[in-house]
Amino acid sequence: MEIDGRNRVIIEGVTPEIDGGRFAAKRVAGDVVTVEADIFADGHDLISAVVRYRRPGESEWREQPMKALVNDRWRAEFALEMLGVYRFTIDAWIDHFLSWHGDLEKRVDAGQDVAVELLVGRAMIEAAASRAKGRDQKRLRSYLEDLDGEGSADERADALFDDDLVALMARNAERTFVTSLGRELPIEVDRLRAGFSSWYELFPRSTGKLGEHGSFATAADELPRIAAMGFDVVYLPPIHPIGTTHRKGVDNATAATAADVGSPWAIGSGAGGHRAIHPQLGTMDDFRSFRRRAEALGIEVALDIAFQASPDHPAVTEHQEWFQKRPDGTIRYAENPPKKYQDIYPFHFESDAWRTLWNELRDVFLHWAAEGVRIFRVDNPHTKPLPFWEWVIGEVKRAYPDAIFLAEAFTRPKIMYYLAKAGFSQSYTYFAWRNSKEELTDYFTELTTGGVSDFFRPNAWPNTPDILTEFLQYGGRPAFLMRLILAATLSANYGIYGPAFERFVGAAREAG
Amino acid sequence: MEIDGRNRVIIEGVTPEIDGGRFAAKRVAGDVVTVEADIFADGHDLISAVVRYRRPGESEWREQPMKALVNDRWRAEFALEMLGVYRFTIDAWIDHFLSWHGDLEKRVDAGQDVAVELLVGRAMIEAAASRAKGRDQKRLRSYLEDLDGEGSADERADALFDDDLVALMARNAERTFVTSLGRELPIEVDRLRAGFSSWYELFPRSTGKLGEHGSFATAADELPRIAAMGFDVVYLPPIHPIGTTHRKGVDNATAATAADVGSPWAIGSGAGGHRAIHPQLGTMDDFRSFRRRAEALGIEVALDIAFQASPDHPAVTEHQEWFQKRPDGTIRYAENPPKKYQDIYPFHFESDAWRTLWNELRDVFLHWAAEGVRIFRVDNPHTKPLPFWEWVIGEVKRAYPDAIFLAEAFTRPKIMYYLAKAGFSQSYTYFAWRNSKEELTDYFTELTTGGVSDFFRPNAWPNTPDILTEFLQYGGRPAFLMRLILAATLSANYGIYGPAFERFVGAAREAG
Repeated sequence: MEIDGRNRVIIEGVTPEIDGGRFAAKRVAGDVVTVEADIFADGHDLISAVVRYRRPGESEWREQPMKALVNDRWRAEFALEMLGVYRFTIDAWIDHFLSWHGDLEKRVDAGQDVAVELLVGRAMIEAAASRAKGRDQKRLRSYLEDLDGEGSADERADALFDDDLVALMARNAERTFVTSLGRELPIEVDRLRAGFSSWYELFPRSTGKLGEHGSFATAADELPRIAAMGFDVVYLPPIHPIGTTHRKGVDNATAATAADVGSPWAIGSGAGGHRAIHPQLGTMDDFRSFRRRAEALGIEVALDIAFQASPDHPAVTEHQEWFQKRPDGTIRYAENPPKKYQDIYPFHFESDAWRTLWNELRDVFLHWAAEGVRIFRVDNPHTKPLPFWEWVIGEVKRAYPDAIFLAEAFTRPKIMYYLAKAGFSQSYTYFAWRNSKEELTDYFTELTTGGVSDFFRPNAWPNTPDILTEFLQYGGRPAFLMRLILAATLSANYGIYGPAFERFVGAAREAG
Repeated sequence: MEIDGRNRVIIEGVTPEIDGGRFAAKRVAGDVVTVEADIFADGHDLISAVVRYRRPGESEWREQPMKALVNDRWRAEFALEMLGVYRFTIDAWIDHFLSWHGDLEKRVDAGQDVAVELLVGRAMIEAAASRAKGRDQKRLRSYLEDLDGEGSADERADALFDDDLVALMARNAERTFVTSLGRELPIEVDRLRAGFSSWYELFPRSTGKLGEHGSFATAADELPRIAAMGFDVVYLPPIHPIGTTHRKGVDNATAATAADVGSPWAIGSGAGGHRAIHPQLGTMDDFRSFRRRAEALGIEVALDIAFQASPDHPAVTEHQEWFQKRPDGTIRYAENPPKKYQDIYPFHFESDAWRTLWNELRDVFLHWAAEGVRIFRVDNPHTKPLPFWEWVIGEVKRAYPDAIFLAEAFTRPKIMYYLAKAGFSQSYTYFAWRNSKEELTDYFTELTTGGVSDFFRPNAWPNTPDILTEFLQYGGRPAFLMRLILAATLSANYGIYGPAFERFVGAAREAG
């Protein structure tokens, strides 16, 4: 038996706690986190409890006393000032001095002889005095003198009903038979924008004059208008070189014409891969100018990170071990049988070389982070292994605690939640398809209760380049206004795909 | 990095699981336990999953395949035949053969050329054949022959759309990149009576002729009547010698008269302590006769175990280290200031000698278990340390897996739940004070949903020697009938204190 049977206090039902501490609860800097737990013991003795916590990168424990609410629920709060992972735990113990002190008052009130009880308390105060230093020791000793003085037991007891003594004892009495929670629970603190942001998505190439390919320069001209609308994040679909092999045409036509610019998600060409810039958009310097111009307007640039390669991506030849070969020697292209996507090679995460693949993908984030980009919208994270995301987000945030990740996973609910637990700062939602009051109430109740909001931060989008709901197709301007106001008020993060949205473009390619 | 990044499957949300496996879920022998979990991975690949479990005392793992329900929820069942602690865990992995097999069908249906795909599947079947033995190996090889035969790729694929092949591959294919739950979750299997019982409480001393002290012999005469009413547990308040020092009189009078028999909960006298029998009730042989007579009628005897001592208990002199001394050298009697209970000495669980105290209290249970008693109603468990109960119930059930413990803890809800988690087989409830339809519905909904029923088995009592509700005081015979039927139908365990109950004795000592 390894336990000490005299540790009588039980601690359970801690919040915030996600899956037994397996994942971090999310907060933003400036938040005050409220920690609660069920804390109780046998019998009538009084309990004291503290939350102990460490700030990111610090080994020193800080402490906040917990207060009893009702029904054995206890609470403490502490401020989150730094970015990174805070860790907290809880200690609780039977407070023999408090118990004795409370009982003493009841005994005196009932007119009982407390002479012997005073001896019990005296021993506790004496022990605390011998542990205390300086002024605390002096003051504790003065209580001992009162206790040893003249007068009836009742009169001597009177001197002890004093908040000062209780505070002195809380500071100096030995904590005995302490129950520790036994685990450190993480709280990940992001910067405010992780929890409060308004996004504007646009294709830089669509900002040119009619019929001309846009660039970072023409896109930058849109920024004042975007800032004036109040957005603080401008998000660009992939800005990398686009492959030509099996390039798709308009409306997913399998054969592209010479005029077709291809899908920005078919990443990589002779001009480079995930660290390069599509030549028609400009140079890296042009990107930097765009970013600086945005920042001057209070707007941050978010990049789309889509981990897949066109057949022309440099990695396809330089790192064949990151792709899956078929028995005929060809590389397996993306499929969801019977659908085929020959312009896309997925990375093969079950490769023996998965470690170098993971490192490379991490380095893509680090490359853009070094370029000043700290917000990443991740394309289809649910088609890459979930453990990869937990690892890579952890790695990037270790280097850049201000990094923010938005998960573009319109998939089954448990996978969406898991991605959030694994580290994504924000998540796309089903908001676009929730129309009735009941649907919206149910959905946002689910997202804001039961602990979900501890890890899942919704980012509500009424439209995206992929999503134009029937509500917008048929509702006209009022529908666009309604959806914008709902997105911006139901969620602390929202975004639109423009300029289609603010121009109320509701015409569908085909009905429905 | 210690993980294998290729283990792509996630397992979470397991039921039954109590506090991350810290406590056992409760079932009874003959139950089939349903295990569920959320199991999912990235992408479209198909998953296979199994529950692995070990029976009590066995090291061999058994396995049950899990089936997908909806929304990434999976389920398996297995039968619980033995008493004791089963342990289960879950393994899940991407099933590459199943994924390939499903895709192959879609490709064939879409008229795609599957020649290369057949080579992919062939390699998997060949690997399985080389692992397989006997008949399985032969059959797998026959599929390989079909694959290598004449005919178009489509025709050769046709031979593979066969449940037999799927079953053969499930048995023989290597499981790669397996995600294990990573913990073994306990299920404690009790005998049926732990979950389905009807109790009758009586004081043997009250079964004598009017004015005479009853005994086991007179109590035994009540048994046929009790059996005829359908009860299968007869529960006796403490049967041990009763102390005389500070003996209480009628209605808790502080001074007893010579005629007062004292409280059976003031345990211990010169005649012995917790292992002895109150002389006026009879001898150990008389107790054995009583027990045998009950068992012949299909009734089991339950004893009340109250861990406290009268000042006359032998342990008070033999084991002073188990009691708390005050500074004046006296032993601390029970108090809830300003109330005093001088006829009771509590055991001091913070004693340095707590280990020998725990052992002694365990041995009290073992003593009566050796006497054939396997049901224990534990008095006020919430006034003894909760970790003690977890330990002692575990110890007793290790020796007597058929032991049943009923917690008499009418206290705060979290403590009642914790006692159940810590091991109590059944628990008294607030049923007696829930009167309206809404109160009853709310309360039993709480007890039967949200996982509570995995650890907390209510035992509903309309009355006890301590409890006579206003409903019974003022409701007359109809009230007694209603409460009996409610108790017996709302809960699978119920009990009454008789013969007051079945005689509709509703007169209160004082109003209310």
